[in-house]
Amino acid sequence: MSKNRLEAFSDGVLAVAITLLVLDIKVPDPATTTDLGSALGHQWPVYVAYVTSFVTIGIIWINHHAMLSRLRQADHAILALNLFLLMSIVLLPFTTSLLSAYLRHGHGQHLAAAVYGGSLLVMSILFLTLNHHILFPKSHLLSPQLAQERRTQIIRRGATGLAPYTLATALAPVSQYLTIGICAAVAAFYALPIASGGSSG
Amino acid sequence: MSKNRLEAFSDGVLAVAITLLVLDIKVPDPATTTDLGSALGHQWPVYVAYVTSFVTIGIIWINHHAMLSRLRQADHAILALNLFLLMSIVLLPFTTSLLSAYLRHGHGQHLAAAVYGGSLLVMSILFLTLNHHILFPKSHLLSPQLAQERRTQIIRRGATGLAPYTLATALAPVSQYLTIGICAAVAAFYALPIASGGSSG
Amino acid sequence: MSKNRLEAFSDGVLAVAITLLVLDIKVPDPATTTDLGSALGHQWPVYVAYVTSFVTIGIIWINHHAMLSRLRQADHAILALNLFLLMSIVLLPFTTSLLSAYLRHGHGQHLAAAVYGGSLLVMSILFLTLNHHILFPKSHLLSPQLAQERRTQIIRRGATGLAPYTLATALAPVSQYLTIGICAAVAAFYALPIASGGSSG
Amino acid sequence: MSKNRLEAFSDGVLAVAITLLVLDIKVPDPATTTDLGSALGHQWPVYVAYVTSFVTIGIIWINHHAMLSRLRQADHAILALNLFLLMSIVLLPFTTSLLSAYLRHGHGQHLAAAVYGGSLLVMSILFLTLNHHILFPKSHLLSPQLAQERRTQIIRRGATGLAPYTLATALAPVSQYLTIGICAAVAAFYALPIASGGSSG
Repeated sequence: MSKNRLEAFSDGVLAVAITLLVLDIKVPDPATTTDLGSALGHQWPVYVAYVTSFVTIGIIWINHHAMLSRLRQADHAILALNLFLLMSIVLLPFTTSLLSAYLRHGHGQHLAAAVYGGSLLVMSILFLTLNHHILFPKSHLLSPQLAQERRTQIIRRGATGLAPYTLATALAPVSQYLTIGICAAVAAFYALPIASGGSSG
Repeated sequence: MSKNRLEAFSDGVLAVAITLLVLDIKVPDPATTTDLGSALGHQWPVYVAYVTSFVTIGIIWINHHAMLSRLRQADHAILALNLFLLMSIVLLPFTTSLLSAYLRHGHGQHLAAAVYGGSLLVMSILFLTLNHHILFPKSHLLSPQLAQERRTQIIRRGATGLAPYTLATALAPVSQYLTIGICAAVAAFYALPIASGGSSG
Repeated sequence: MSKNRLEAFSDGVLAVAITLLVLDIKVPDPATTTDLGSALGHQWPVYVAYVTSFVTIGIIWINHHAMLSRLRQADHAILALNLFLLMSIVLLPFTTSLLSAYLRHGHGQHLAAAVYGGSLLVMSILFLTLNHHILFPKSHLLSPQLAQERRTQIIRRGATGLAPYTLATALAPVSQYLTIGICAAVAAFYALPIASGGSSG
Repeated sequence: MSKNRLEAFSDGVLAVAITLLVLDIKVPDPATTTDLGSALGHQWPVYVAYVTSFVTIGIIWINHHAMLSRLRQADHAILALNLFLLMSIVLLPFTTSLLSAYLRHGHGQHLAAAVYGGSLLVMSILFLTLNHHILFPKSHLLSPQLAQERRTQIIRRGATGLAPYTLATALAPVSQYLTIGICAAVAAFYALPIASGGSSG
């Protein structure tokens, strides 16, 4: 099976998921809002979560592209694993919305942060699983061939990438701000020029 | 007519429909929620329905790809049948939402399950109709040609695939859990490695 | 300018617009619904409007494909006219929703039908304008060249196509059912096999 | 890295964002509306904002296409800058919705207009930044090469394009109608035939 429609479908799902994030930014109801400035300012967690999740999905897209660019063709297992990866990414508009709704709330804030960090962790694990599946059991589908050393290096770097999301999830019971801060830092690290050499998933 | 834009349009519709499923997972209202954990736990039917429908649409996409990959070009009847197939798939975010809203409800649960199972059954019938139309009346559009035996085999396997959805719909008056269980089992069967050889629609 | 991204962007917009139609089919609120069957039956105008608009956008897509397939490349005027055409198509989820909300209502039903029919009429006029612009002032961008006779024939057929939407809009003050009936008949005519030879917009 | 998936992903995001604008046009609630005509007329700011934002995103798409068409391939910095540009574009359904909700309101109307104008200004600045990055530091990725004079001319024209959005934002405290008027005029200028030669962003 050619990988063209796999790329097209994945691009489509990622494009819709990243754009749906904006639906979480609500317009304050004119009927009940007396001070628009403070109402807009009050929902700052929404903006932080929007930017963090947008950049995160964007980076997943870049890395997803790098991962598939090594493939010559796809098989059923790759399609199925990719489907589960997309399923975890499509959840992000929900977990982002959950986090921004509870970030400054008196209760539920720790659970919401754990769900948010956990969803990013699950997504990273599925990404690593698919990448491993492509690089090792299905290495005959790679084009051009990659030395085992190089493949091991890619997986090792991906595994290291799990650490911050594990930490972000584990620290949710301590402080929801730590969770979002770590997730935002990961997004910034990969998006800023300093990581130019580090985005090959 | 070339089949490229047919693939692109179908991919787009499937990508949007599969992503809209996440809109059904609602954030519990912070103003009225006293226990976020139990509120999130309480809506487990939503997660079950999300996963089932997501995997189902994903498998449709894989099979749709296999179906079109046999075509050299498309004609008006193929475009029209494909349009009706897409129309049934785009309904899934609605029937999924209906099922998850009523699954544990005191009334309407059987009807909601019947609508859900029925929408998957209709979708399967339209898929089989289009596949039959491509493989038999329009077999001159196939590339490369397929032996009649092979074409009959594909249709026969597709027809067998109608059985579980017929059963799921028929059992809705008995138990809504049977319906969702059968539909989830079908999704799992096709997504898991064991069915690697069985996804060629 | 190559026409590839023009096709890709148009396909994307049409795919999103056609899929957003499903958001108009609402799940009856479990808290206030005592009879799900009659609640679902009661909203039959929603299903009629969904099917009519879905098939209509699908046919626009088929015709849009035929229109662009004649082009070798695009210029600014074609991009701009196509943008206005897309703007009218993207309105359909709104006018569809308006029609289905007011179809059986005691008041506003005629206006809602006029807005619905009118939006289809405007869309048809913009489609014809773009097609005329491609076939006449920009005929040097066609590939292969078409005889003037053939081009005149295409425009004439498109102009005839305006008649039913004009009629549907004009009859809205008489009966909203006439409006939706005519629009549904147009959709059925183009989608059914009988019109196989008539979809080259 | 090839630029094909960059174009496909950007096209997808722009197509979804432009289509989500229609969700801002609400159907007046049949239960509380006594005069549909005046209810639809009353929300004219929604239509003005819809048309302005739709045409604006459409023009961004045309210019984005022209910008990428000069590239032979993309690097990490281009991907990252493009991601931030998309993030500002995806905000437009929100800022459009904010403007149309407050345009005729007794308070908040100036702030809403400033946010709307400001979001277009930020988007223009990010567009210019990406275009400058492509034309100067990464000019070796261009294909074919462009004379420095021509590249300077493109950037200069883009910089001039910032003026109306700066003005629109600065005048928001004076009148929200000036803001939307200037933004609509910019959209009309680029969309109408007169600007045919001026869309190469």
